[in-house]
Amino acid sequence: MAIKGELTRQKIIADAAQIFQRKGFGATSINDLLSATGVTKGNLYFHFPGKEAIGIAVLQQESERFMQFLDEALTGSTPAACLDNFFTMVLRKHQKIGFVGGCLFGNTALEASDTFPVYAQMVSDVFDQWSDKLQCKVTAAQVLGLVRGDLPAKHLAQMIVATIEGGIMQSRLKKSAEPMTRCLDTLRTVLALKLPTAH
Amino acid sequence: MAIKGELTRQKIIADAAQIFQRKGFGATSINDLLSATGVTKGNLYFHFPGKEAIGIAVLQQESERFMQFLDEALTGSTPAACLDNFFTMVLRKHQKIGFVGGCLFGNTALEASDTFPVYAQMVSDVFDQWSDKLQCKVTAAQVLGLVRGDLPAKHLAQMIVATIEGGIMQSRLKKSAEPMTRCLDTLRTVLALKLPTAH
Repeated sequence: MAIKGELTRQKIIADAAQIFQRKGFGATSINDLLSATGVTKGNLYFHFPGKEAIGIAVLQQESERFMQFLDEALTGSTPAACLDNFFTMVLRKHQKIGFVGGCLFGNTALEASDTFPVYAQMVSDVFDQWSDKLQCKVTAAQVLGLVRGDLPAKHLAQMIVATIEGGIMQSRLKKSAEPMTRCLDTLRTVLALKLPTAH
Repeated sequence: MAIKGELTRQKIIADAAQIFQRKGFGATSINDLLSATGVTKGNLYFHFPGKEAIGIAVLQQESERFMQFLDEALTGSTPAACLDNFFTMVLRKHQKIGFVGGCLFGNTALEASDTFPVYAQMVSDVFDQWSDKLQCKVTAAQVLGLVRGDLPAKHLAQMIVATIEGGIMQSRLKKSAEPMTRCLDTLRTVLALKLPTAH
């Protein structure tokens, strides 16, 4: 019974994540959640006090998944190769979903910044952690002369995050890989990313 | 009477623009619009068939205003100075509103891309026009050696748009000028923007 309850809770979070990402938190009603999850109203309220709590659970789960994605994507034979691989992986991630849904954190940032302080804080933390992970790789790459050294690693990391979020926005709008691919290639050049030569 | 009607229509658009920017289209109800505008339901439906039509009118008006802003901001003694002045003006624009509301087009892009094709097309056109205006200045600056010449002007213009949208997102989330200022300064450096020396 406890296991069944936990499975229901997980199903609510998974289904809610999809609908929030597509419609946004604000526009999603409890009825939308009921038809998306297929659970009864009583069951939904047994697991969560309301929509905001479901949103928090979704953000928590997605944050953990995103950090795991970052750790897996930021790998390579040199720090510059790690950044390059991350660029490839983040594009692939959005390409795989046909540029539908975009970045849950970016969407929530734009939707929640002025109206849901709890969500805004959670998303702000995700962006900071993302930026910190990039900064580590940029610093290491700079030491080895594999990324331009005339700008602080922190500034370059923040620009990477901003450019990727903007690139996702453009690709999602046009349902085309072109804007995001272009932004990532331009980032590679302006960072002066030096990659190991292929054998 | 015709003038009074036009004034009411303008008031509905102006008040709706504010509430859409803060709450998003999806989360704004007709009741929200009625209390924001103070007009009666009958009067609102006399001017607009529904929320979607109000959204279109808001996007049209804001697009025209934004193009006017771009033409005013992209001015200076050299093409590089035009880009620099635009960076300063776009920061000031968002600073003046305390990083509340953000960019209506960015918000609409994230909200409408998968659900409201009419809005998505309008916003996509705004981004294309914005990018085209930047591209003209970048090209002119490249000819004069005032911006790096190793990347196509179109790619640099697209990166500027993406980075600014991402920077607005971060500043709005943190209610701080720091992320956007940082992104714009980093853009100045990675573009290798050469400005006229002050006298």
